[in-house]
Amino acid sequence: MKTLSILGSTGSIGTQTLELVRNNPNEFKVLGLTVNKNIELLKQQIDEFNPVSVAVMDEQKADELKVDIPVYKGLEGINKIATLQESNTIINSLVGSIGVIPTIKAIKEKKNIALANKETLVTAGDIVMEEVRKHQVNLMPIDSEHSAIFQCLNGEKINELKKIIITCSGGAFKNKTEEELKTVTAKDALKHPTWNMGAKITIDSATLMNKGFEVIEAHHLYNIPYEQIEVIIHPESIIHSLVEFQDTSIIAQLGYPDMKIPIQYALTYPKRIKNNLKSLNLNELKQLNFKTPNHQLFPCLNYAYEAGKTKGTLPAVLNAANEVAVQQFLENKISFLDIAKTIKQALDSHNIIKNPDLAEILEVDKQTRENASLKS
Amino acid sequence: MKTLSILGSTGSIGTQTLELVRNNPNEFKVLGLTVNKNIELLKQQIDEFNPVSVAVMDEQKADELKVDIPVYKGLEGINKIATLQESNTIINSLVGSIGVIPTIKAIKEKKNIALANKETLVTAGDIVMEEVRKHQVNLMPIDSEHSAIFQCLNGEKINELKKIIITCSGGAFKNKTEEELKTVTAKDALKHPTWNMGAKITIDSATLMNKGFEVIEAHHLYNIPYEQIEVIIHPESIIHSLVEFQDTSIIAQLGYPDMKIPIQYALTYPKRIKNNLKSLNLNELKQLNFKTPNHQLFPCLNYAYEAGKTKGTLPAVLNAANEVAVQQFLENKISFLDIAKTIKQALDSHNIIKNPDLAEILEVDKQTRENASLKS
Repeated sequence: MKTLSILGSTGSIGTQTLELVRNNPNEFKVLGLTVNKNIELLKQQIDEFNPVSVAVMDEQKADELKVDIPVYKGLEGINKIATLQESNTIINSLVGSIGVIPTIKAIKEKKNIALANKETLVTAGDIVMEEVRKHQVNLMPIDSEHSAIFQCLNGEKINELKKIIITCSGGAFKNKTEEELKTVTAKDALKHPTWNMGAKITIDSATLMNKGFEVIEAHHLYNIPYEQIEVIIHPESIIHSLVEFQDTSIIAQLGYPDMKIPIQYALTYPKRIKNNLKSLNLNELKQLNFKTPNHQLFPCLNYAYEAGKTKGTLPAVLNAANEVAVQQFLENKISFLDIAKTIKQALDSHNIIKNPDLAEILEVDKQTRENASLKS
Repeated sequence: MKTLSILGSTGSIGTQTLELVRNNPNEFKVLGLTVNKNIELLKQQIDEFNPVSVAVMDEQKADELKVDIPVYKGLEGINKIATLQESNTIINSLVGSIGVIPTIKAIKEKKNIALANKETLVTAGDIVMEEVRKHQVNLMPIDSEHSAIFQCLNGEKINELKKIIITCSGGAFKNKTEEELKTVTAKDALKHPTWNMGAKITIDSATLMNKGFEVIEAHHLYNIPYEQIEVIIHPESIIHSLVEFQDTSIIAQLGYPDMKIPIQYALTYPKRIKNNLKSLNLNELKQLNFKTPNHQLFPCLNYAYEAGKTKGTLPAVLNAANEVAVQQFLENKISFLDIAKTIKQALDSHNIIKNPDLAEILEVDKQTRENASLKS
């Protein structure tokens, strides 16, 4: 049986993970939960899943929660749940670079990680992967693309890998002109065509920054040079990614766009267990389409490649500036096209630290947020 | 180093296998070759690849071949090459049910088999697979679909398999009406849209019997019930087949339609070696299409499912009647629609032998050919 701590249990990934646990009581037991501030839903989750302890990021909300198990507070509290002695697997579905610290703490305690928090690898990929190797834990990706790549690499040799091709729905604004992009709003973006996701990642999908983050993640997860990672627009989101080997044979993973598949795979691997999801019907779909991304209209993807290749503290700047800009866009403070501009400014004005340690990365993260916020 | 005997070395698969050997002299050495009657090309192959002995099916042609290595004749001769002591791998690219006997003889001598001869598994699948298990040899498929399935199952558990989906180009006549099908000729068919193949298999593709054979082969190779094998028309022939697991995740293998990939994979497995083939470009392709087969216009696919499910000697009848009918169509003696009719008649009039031995299968094969020939 897998014993789980879920960081971010009231979000999209968190609630879907709990659904998996609900449907498979013999496979999983929930021991710890953390939330940002939604203590009402947390209360329900405690009643249903009986964790041994929980944490609430918002300290005031933590004090308001009245339950008969320990309630920890703030980042300290989240770290506590991430390192619970009884849990063997940590699901990290926090949003933003705040996810880095509990991830590293959990790895050091030899926990296996199911990682939905992209910013962990984007911001501190080299450090995190070094810890993964050192402590010999499993780091399983919970997003459809990296889960697809992981599945495609099953039984294959990484040194025979030629190329990773990450598919991309194109995001909410894939068919917009430059003129139209000037006036689109967060509300427009949140009607995302294929995936049911949180607000921040939906905006990241619309700017293609989400895909840029995935390129950086793939680089770290599979230790593959950026030159061997491609992105292709595939509006139907049925092929979740592809892998080409040196014999030119390509393996792909497919399915309806449903996060329950990668969540389940990350938590049951190497087993595949039955579920009640609908089988893919290619005849019903009739057609799958592909095209190259428009780098001019959606420059964030290239910024991610550049930051990734440059390394050092630049990916942390990319991520922090993006977090601030997306938040401002969600609050209607800046326009959609300003998101990319904010990021570009932050990247251009940063003095890169080569081979930074975690403290330096976190300091750059903080500084970048402050600078980006001031400018808005 | 793999030491090879190639049965059918002057055909499409045979010559492409020799090209692979030519490009990878450190991986492969050719020790035996067999041909039907093309001794001119065989002579060139002997000069280039220096086998230790060869066989020619046509005994008169065998006598005409003047070389300084042993030349064996007829089926006996082919069996000799199939069991050459020095060869560890037999490539069986014979056409028709004649391929069964050398396959079984080679397995009994503990040779690994790379099998392009579909009729071997269609006609005598139960017997062949029993020998494979008994002698613990590898039976690697050389066709794009089963190679795809094999690759998709890499690192996976067969008991977690839910469904195999075999893709099908639709054949040369996929867009024809019933009226048009009445008058199409072999010449029309031989302009097959996507794959470069021999004449017999091109007609089998046009009738969808080729796909029916592949369904029967998949049943034997992966020990999966017919109810869990589906066929879908995919005109671009880019996805070579797909496998669904019980978690509804689907793995697919893709590439340009080029038999060199499955040939190479069958001979280098578990390694994947570099080649000079072109990488798939999804952006260039733009679109992949899917639809269900038209079972009314192309009934052979259903005949294959029925014969496969019924078992016993019925699959041998299916294959033998098809071989005769296709030959007659190639010689313009019967119409395209008559192929299915000939097969249906043979299936309907056959008295099934349950659990036949090889001698009974071969006798039924012979009888069916005689009956089908008489009727034309």
